[in-house]
Amino acid sequence: MSSRKISGFPEWLPEQRLVETHIVDQIRRVFELNGFIGIETRAVETLADLESKGETSKEVYVLERLQARKEGQISELSSRTLGLHFDLTVPLSRWIVQHSNDVVFPFRRYQIQKVWRGERPQEGRFREFRQADVDIVGNGELGFHHEVEVATVMLEALNALPIPRARMRVNNRKILQGACEVLGIVSVESVLRELDKLDKEAAATIWNNLAETGLTPTQVEGLQKLTEIVTDSPTELRQKIQATGLSSELLSQGTDELCALLEGVNQAVPGQVQAYLSLTRGLDYYTGSVYETFIQNFEHLGSICSGGRYDALARNGSRFYPGVGMSIGVSRLVSLVLSEPFARSSRATPSAVYVAVDSEETRGESNRVARELRQRGIPCEVSAKAAKYGKQIRAAEQRGIPFVWFPATSEVKDIRSGVQQAADATKWCPPESDWWPTVETSTS
Amino acid sequence: MSSRKISGFPEWLPEQRLVETHIVDQIRRVFELNGFIGIETRAVETLADLESKGETSKEVYVLERLQARKEGQISELSSRTLGLHFDLTVPLSRWIVQHSNDVVFPFRRYQIQKVWRGERPQEGRFREFRQADVDIVGNGELGFHHEVEVATVMLEALNALPIPRARMRVNNRKILQGACEVLGIVSVESVLRELDKLDKEAAATIWNNLAETGLTPTQVEGLQKLTEIVTDSPTELRQKIQATGLSSELLSQGTDELCALLEGVNQAVPGQVQAYLSLTRGLDYYTGSVYETFIQNFEHLGSICSGGRYDALARNGSRFYPGVGMSIGVSRLVSLVLSEPFARSSRATPSAVYVAVDSEETRGESNRVARELRQRGIPCEVSAKAAKYGKQIRAAEQRGIPFVWFPATSEVKDIRSGVQQAADATKWCPPESDWWPTVETSTS
Repeated sequence: MSSRKISGFPEWLPEQRLVETHIVDQIRRVFELNGFIGIETRAVETLADLESKGETSKEVYVLERLQARKEGQISELSSRTLGLHFDLTVPLSRWIVQHSNDVVFPFRRYQIQKVWRGERPQEGRFREFRQADVDIVGNGELGFHHEVEVATVMLEALNALPIPRARMRVNNRKILQGACEVLGIVSVESVLRELDKLDKEAAATIWNNLAETGLTPTQVEGLQKLTEIVTDSPTELRQKIQATGLSSELLSQGTDELCALLEGVNQAVPGQVQAYLSLTRGLDYYTGSVYETFIQNFEHLGSICSGGRYDALARNGSRFYPGVGMSIGVSRLVSLVLSEPFARSSRATPSAVYVAVDSEETRGESNRVARELRQRGIPCEVSAKAAKYGKQIRAAEQRGIPFVWFPATSEVKDIRSGVQQAADATKWCPPESDWWPTVETSTS
Repeated sequence: MSSRKISGFPEWLPEQRLVETHIVDQIRRVFELNGFIGIETRAVETLADLESKGETSKEVYVLERLQARKEGQISELSSRTLGLHFDLTVPLSRWIVQHSNDVVFPFRRYQIQKVWRGERPQEGRFREFRQADVDIVGNGELGFHHEVEVATVMLEALNALPIPRARMRVNNRKILQGACEVLGIVSVESVLRELDKLDKEAAATIWNNLAETGLTPTQVEGLQKLTEIVTDSPTELRQKIQATGLSSELLSQGTDELCALLEGVNQAVPGQVQAYLSLTRGLDYYTGSVYETFIQNFEHLGSICSGGRYDALARNGSRFYPGVGMSIGVSRLVSLVLSEPFARSSRATPSAVYVAVDSEETRGESNRVARELRQRGIPCEVSAKAAKYGKQIRAAEQRGIPFVWFPATSEVKDIRSGVQQAADATKWCPPESDWWPTVETSTS
């Protein structure tokens, strides 16, 4: 029997799972404080929906019934074939169309769920991981200010976590689109795809590639000047864009929005946002603001919170549902927090008290004490075995349980300090800090 | 575009999701009060593990990479093929062997997760649903008292939910096994399988079937007398078993355990447990107590909480890990609670306050009020649009948000009573009952 791990499918030990739960709870709290409504969608979508934005670049797992396979049936792929969702945006698009009469727009939703990607195992990426998404979806229209709001909420959520400071890079697709128009570039998609690599490959390679696809030196130079712009100041942003000499209505609208985004986010969460004009978010169908977020000193992990604005997050016939949303890669964050570690759980079990058992005959008495403690909300467990007290204390210690209760003498012992005192099971309480396991953080 | 529902994959609307979250939170709280440790396992297991107890009767979904399928590759089924887990017991067995050095035994774990079964859609069953399991797993040995404990914890969890009273039926495999031995029945498995149908089909059919498989009239009669026994009294249970005339060491050990189970559970949670000697739990590899639980007046839903004791929940070479556990069918319960309904959410959104906006120019002022409220833990959202107050109040009403805040005059209005008063965003609080959405129950 091997280790039984399956590469790409992370699992945490109990004390690690408590840290993960803490992280998810913190994120959820910020989402709910901001009035986002939690939904959960099924794990599967039809291929028609999974591929609704054209063939997806994400690897999809399709499902087949084992019995059918054993009977030699291999179903043909069709639009109705079921696959596991690879993100939480595709399910939202489908859900919005399905429930457009059940919700009030703009609809503010959050969703924290696992997603699956059928990556090849050797690539070492997660194939199962948890994401935490917020999106605001309008019916026909959606105010720009929501693009500020979503970025703010995500920074607030990240600031609530035991991680170093997050820095958000923002851009606006209208600037890139406008610049391409002004420069007479038609192949906008392939340009976006190339620019998306700017952070990963040498810039010179990108510019060469673009020249090879037929862009003129003027076109390449225009893009180069524009995408070099990095600033957290709206004033400087305007000046630098002006200095490129590129100008059009779309470009100027994008510039206004990007400046408003910097100002709005800075007002709510100072010093964590930066205009970064080479940011494109590849081929996703964004039409306004785009976002990526990096953790200080852990930039090599890549963006841990990304997203943007779609003018057509969903559509139903001629009806469009614009949306803006971002997604936190929760599993990647948990992985980071655990490996550093930036946080640990004070114990691995919920139990604050281990109730000793004198003999199997008096187990009922120990159970009664446990019931009384639980009735007052104190998590506890009864010793698995009647044994010498020393042995039972060691059992509690191994489990990280701070208190042992002795029903025979009605005494409770703090096994860390050794202090033992008389106690009434209908009145005694552990100190607040020992009541439930707590997550202790080493950052901030 | 059809309704986009996929049969067997339930999804809840936001206000229903809040009820589901409430139910899961209640269950989790009882589990944690009883010192159970939460783990989460990956959604997939290998076929080797999924079929580790022989070919499973549960329908399994296997995964295939879409790109591979498109390239015409159809992977051969092998022991390493991945499939979605169909319960939380198989993952636990695998996890225990993998982490036997990372945990302290007896290991008390709970797990609340979705599972998938590749049922044929026409059968109208859930193909994706949530289960809530507790198991206690020993290393080599496991005290009988844990069989009492698990049943008690599950009744406590069910009693915390907005459902009618649950009744648990219990039996002990040693009684059935012992009776078969005494009666000289060799084909115990097929007998168990037949007896399992006693609640679903006419008893006469079952006895006929057994006679046809070669059982003698004496054997059938013996089983019949035994399996007719239903009682919540340990004394009566002993008498009735004695009256069957069947007797052996195993049978008597099973009887002792079943009596102890009735007594122990009754002591902790009075009046909800009953010995029900036709209960077999089919082919699952139970070796001691077995349990099923029904909801009063909703017995037709079948058992909503079942399980039992395994002497080999897991094994690693010659090392056995006995376990006892039960599983609540959370999705089925949520379905029941929503359809009656036994509970509803006070509102569909977390927001307690809708902050009005006078004009897009003063949106920053509204944002500031919202930030102040959130800093004190009050969930709120800012109006999507600057509009006449009447329109903004209607927007809050549509969303079920009880309060509207007017930053221009620093006033807050309870839109249900119409009462409007001056308020300071750094001090005002909503009444406790309006702070977060609450789940109001109509049972108990």
